Amino acid sequence: MNIPRTSYPRIVIIGGGFAGVALAKKLSKREVQVVLLDKNNYHTFQPLLYQVSTGGLEPDSIAYPIRKILKNFPNFHFRLANVNEIDAESNKVITNIGELKFEYLVIASGAKTNYFGNKVIEAHSMAMKTIPQSLNLRSLILENFEDALLTSDLNERNALMNFVIVGGGPTGVELAGALAEIKKGILPKDYPDLDTRLAQIHIIQSSDCILKGMSKKASEKAEDFLEKLGVNIWKNVRVTNYDGMTVTTNTDLTFETATLIWAAGVKGATIKGMDETYMVTKGNRLLVNAYNQVKGFEHIFAVGDVANMLTDSFPNGLPMMAQPAIQQGDQLGDNLLRLIEGKPMEPFVYKDKGVMATIGRNKAVVDLKRFKFQGIFAWYVWMFVHLFFLIGFRNRVVVFVNWVYNYIRFDREARLIIRPFKTRRKVKG
Amino acid sequence: MNIPRTSYPRIVIIGGGFAGVALAKKLSKREVQVVLLDKNNYHTFQPLLYQVSTGGLEPDSIAYPIRKILKNFPNFHFRLANVNEIDAESNKVITNIGELKFEYLVIASGAKTNYFGNKVIEAHSMAMKTIPQSLNLRSLILENFEDALLTSDLNERNALMNFVIVGGGPTGVELAGALAEIKKGILPKDYPDLDTRLAQIHIIQSSDCILKGMSKKASEKAEDFLEKLGVNIWKNVRVTNYDGMTVTTNTDLTFETATLIWAAGVKGATIKGMDETYMVTKGNRLLVNAYNQVKGFEHIFAVGDVANMLTDSFPNGLPMMAQPAIQQGDQLGDNLLRLIEGKPMEPFVYKDKGVMATIGRNKAVVDLKRFKFQGIFAWYVWMFVHLFFLIGFRNRVVVFVNWVYNYIRFDREARLIIRPFKTRRKVKG
Repeated sequence: MNIPRTSYPRIVIIGGGFAGVALAKKLSKREVQVVLLDKNNYHTFQPLLYQVSTGGLEPDSIAYPIRKILKNFPNFHFRLANVNEIDAESNKVITNIGELKFEYLVIASGAKTNYFGNKVIEAHSMAMKTIPQSLNLRSLILENFEDALLTSDLNERNALMNFVIVGGGPTGVELAGALAEIKKGILPKDYPDLDTRLAQIHIIQSSDCILKGMSKKASEKAEDFLEKLGVNIWKNVRVTNYDGMTVTTNTDLTFETATLIWAAGVKGATIKGMDETYMVTKGNRLLVNAYNQVKGFEHIFAVGDVANMLTDSFPNGLPMMAQPAIQQGDQLGDNLLRLIEGKPMEPFVYKDKGVMATIGRNKAVVDLKRFKFQGIFAWYVWMFVHLFFLIGFRNRVVVFVNWVYNYIRFDREARLIIRPFKTRRKVKG
Repeated sequence: MNIPRTSYPRIVIIGGGFAGVALAKKLSKREVQVVLLDKNNYHTFQPLLYQVSTGGLEPDSIAYPIRKILKNFPNFHFRLANVNEIDAESNKVITNIGELKFEYLVIASGAKTNYFGNKVIEAHSMAMKTIPQSLNLRSLILENFEDALLTSDLNERNALMNFVIVGGGPTGVELAGALAEIKKGILPKDYPDLDTRLAQIHIIQSSDCILKGMSKKASEKAEDFLEKLGVNIWKNVRVTNYDGMTVTTNTDLTFETATLIWAAGVKGATIKGMDETYMVTKGNRLLVNAYNQVKGFEHIFAVGDVANMLTDSFPNGLPMMAQPAIQQGDQLGDNLLRLIEGKPMEPFVYKDKGVMATIGRNKAVVDLKRFKFQGIFAWYVWMFVHLFFLIGFRNRVVVFVNWVYNYIRFDREARLIIRPFKTRRKVKG
């Protein structure tokens, strides 16, 4: 892989998400060599992907070139690579661009969409975990409206304007809210020929409340907000299949739709060689101890979504969110330096800073440790926190400009179909 | 195509570029029905495409949803469509989404890259006429740097870092300047392992000066600016072939490069049925009279790059630039209304507002009718004019923010490889 050996120990990090970047930053300018591998040359700010899908933000403003994050770190090397396998016995990773030996390995490969084994749904539904996926969804939504104009078949037009979101977690809720705002703010102006009432947005949630990870108050208020925006919430319903047109469920309910967005779950993105049964737990995550060491290893670590750390407050593992990832990456940086210097490592303690979700303009829900609040103030807090955690000054300014513009104009201008999703368009009269 | 017939005459416009949009805006709220057809749902501000290719701007900030441009125009209909043929006898256009009758037709289909019949060059080179093409080029440039890190073959590394631009017009000059700034500002910071000196930028120009359409002073100064930036300019050299690795020319010169950018010419994008020999002139453009009527027709017009209007000052036709297109579109709007009301049309008179090109920070050349100037003031004028003509307030603010940021930081942050251009990456040790 053309990376020079130095006298410093080599730490290989797989993944430039929140955890990997926090870790690499912590190791910056220390006496270690860091090699970060990622299949993309950019870090993705995943919490705002739904705004890319719905035309509120351009993709470049929620992503950041990984090379730039660490440009003043002389012993840092980035390589654009897919890691195919980890050979823990010989201490090397095997990638599409060659093999690489390591002294320490940190798996920060994140999570991927969990279809719970349903290949048919996987083939026909849209996911929203990456920038290309979000751009595909943006194209599909816009192409659906364009196609709805062309058909004189009312059933087809209904299906094209019907959006079904599976999963009432933050992703599903935020996306539903954004789609409801498109229905209200953009459809009537830009598609005067389309009957806005046909645009239906559904959330299908398998349990009896949305935003399960949040407080009862937040969940109820979010439901209230969504219903006021015209979103239909179907609770205690489980999607059983989707063939590209009809969604079937475990009840009598069915939905005719051209767009099923699967936000029903994620699972750890484990890597071949480090996916033995004894180390993998619920959600396909790697079991780690309080030092983020993967079960059975002293020099192989996992952080972020792919790591499963069981704590007293979180007996099923820390939530798969940005905060635990950032904190773990940061703490592991210190621990690796301690380990290299022969000092004892310190156990990770998660500082729960709260959870939040936005539903739409002036509408968000925030659960802090001591305070829970909803509405316009929560919305401001949500925006402030997201701007704060976004990497890069330029990104913050551009996102801020877009938010102000969208707020004042009730608009979303990043609506280009630059990755046509439907390979062929139907020919109608 | 599901467009209702009203009592108003129907004007069909093919193409939502500068000419088509200017025309549609002029017809807004008048007693006509306007149907605009474009294969994209967005208008592209082509003069800034080179900044997308080089990571200076995000694509969404130089494009604009066509539907939004005319949202307060009740008799306006937009359809996302490819026009396959014009049936002038039956007054209809035939598209991939059906046929459409018209009373008046305006062809504003613009221009496309002219390879002068060389299919091999077309297959291996990069063009920069559309947003997807610009994003492909952006990906390729970045992928080349990533690949250059992986190879230990010096010839291969050279070829990956060697950029050959064919054509010394504004596109070639502006792109070369931007690449030179990447070489100076980004390569040393982000790719410390790569020897910056290997990054070579070449412009190959078939005639004896660059920026042929501008004054001698502008051309010389641009050449001077480029040479100071380290760009190699090869004049009186014609590229004869490129197989994906070696560029051959009509001289002894050859270049080994992984990236050939073809900016050597454009030609009118004529449409089947309106491409008879008698109506097509030099540059594959449709011959029009002073009213923009296509030769032989009273109700079929052409405007912008695809139209060839011969004037005393421009005996070879108006230049294929934004200004003639905007002015023609605007004027044709008035003429169409006159024609419908039975009044005589007025001939088009081109107001030459000047030509400009930018080479890099603080470096531009401007030719106005009375003044010709170069350097930092020209650069400010260039920026001001481009911001002014950009459509959309949000776009202007976002472009402005990016330019200020890039200027202060010597940076370009829109560097995501979101459309991997190389389908497979080489596996090296």
